[in-house]
Amino acid sequence: MRDAYHEELDSIGEGLVEMARLVGSAIGRATTAILDSDLKLAEAVIEGDKKIDDLQHDLEARAIALLARQQPVATDLRIVVTSLRMSADLERSGDLAQHVAKLARLRFPERAVPQDLHATILEMGQLAQRLMAKAAEVIVTKDVDLALQLEQDDDEMDLLHRTLFQHLIDDRWKHGIETAVDVTLLGRYYERYADHAVAVAKRVVYLVTGEYADDLQQDIQPVTGVEGA
Amino acid sequence: MRDAYHEELDSIGEGLVEMARLVGSAIGRATTAILDSDLKLAEAVIEGDKKIDDLQHDLEARAIALLARQQPVATDLRIVVTSLRMSADLERSGDLAQHVAKLARLRFPERAVPQDLHATILEMGQLAQRLMAKAAEVIVTKDVDLALQLEQDDDEMDLLHRTLFQHLIDDRWKHGIETAVDVTLLGRYYERYADHAVAVAKRVVYLVTGEYADDLQQDIQPVTGVEGA
Repeated sequence: MRDAYHEELDSIGEGLVEMARLVGSAIGRATTAILDSDLKLAEAVIEGDKKIDDLQHDLEARAIALLARQQPVATDLRIVVTSLRMSADLERSGDLAQHVAKLARLRFPERAVPQDLHATILEMGQLAQRLMAKAAEVIVTKDVDLALQLEQDDDEMDLLHRTLFQHLIDDRWKHGIETAVDVTLLGRYYERYADHAVAVAKRVVYLVTGEYADDLQQDIQPVTGVEGA
Repeated sequence: MRDAYHEELDSIGEGLVEMARLVGSAIGRATTAILDSDLKLAEAVIEGDKKIDDLQHDLEARAIALLARQQPVATDLRIVVTSLRMSADLERSGDLAQHVAKLARLRFPERAVPQDLHATILEMGQLAQRLMAKAAEVIVTKDVDLALQLEQDDDEMDLLHRTLFQHLIDDRWKHGIETAVDVTLLGRYYERYADHAVAVAKRVVYLVTGEYADDLQQDIQPVTGVEGA
């Protein structure tokens, strides 16, 4: 019985890695879609989110069934509860990738991102994808050092986010308000996506070390202009 | 033993209601702070978020302890797992209220919201607070009809959000880009806050009916301009 149980526990872990893989791919493709104004790719990301949602429902149902049938305690209980949280983070990351894709679709055949911000958005998209790939690796390896590394990568995302806002509030901004609104929301989507990837990695740290540090909180500041908070 | 158990379960419910009360008050005060550019009030909301975070940690610890000690099944298990999710929604709502307050602090002594958007932001703030008050009532009463009513209120929030964006992209917008960025983010914070209040109510529906409807997903569209998605 215990063997079937640990197999099921492992398969929940595999499900999380599969979700991370899908949402990592989604943010990469959504970024391409918005930079190239590629409607077909945008539609594919939007459609693809359903699979991510289904995976989450499936994982949740299995985690709850496991709690009911096996009534795990101590570490095993912590693993199952933490898995529920990770799947929620991953599902939300998928939504954020979908938001990027929906913005691409909304502005098609125009491009939502002006040429002079192309490089910054590309970097944000790539960084988001790398963060999720690392989060997936952390789930597999339970490597605490790698998990902590994600926080540094997230600092890089904050920096990119600030760059974006500096562009926006620069007097030379010439792309009008609608584009400013689009770019503001885009920046927010990438930032929140990164936060969720970091949260996933931190939850693994919690599993390994048992420390529920205060900084597990995703306390995200509004990074508008020179944020003083 | 079962009595102590149900007492503990009830007290988790009370903790959720207390959290909802605090985050409801936080969004009300944050809205006043940003409309009046009231630094002291903004600081109070920012400080106050720690109490909400502490409450969440405490609730989570108790829920997990309950799982470990009592190993509930069926409905009771569902209640505990759902409580974990609701506390996460409420904690996040508190963060969003804090974001509004931080924006007030960042722009002080200026006002982040121009006069012609004052009424719309006030309405969004009041609606957010009402939504959270109803969510709290749903937790207490488990009233499915009231829970479904929250979705209609949320449509109202979407409408307000659209109004905001229409103002922004109107050719007569004269407040500059920085204010447009602030207002875009503010709109997003209120919208997300409302989503979490609705999610809390829907989780109660799930508890009562056992239906994990697809629309439990918080699939939030980016409402930029005339969102077609």
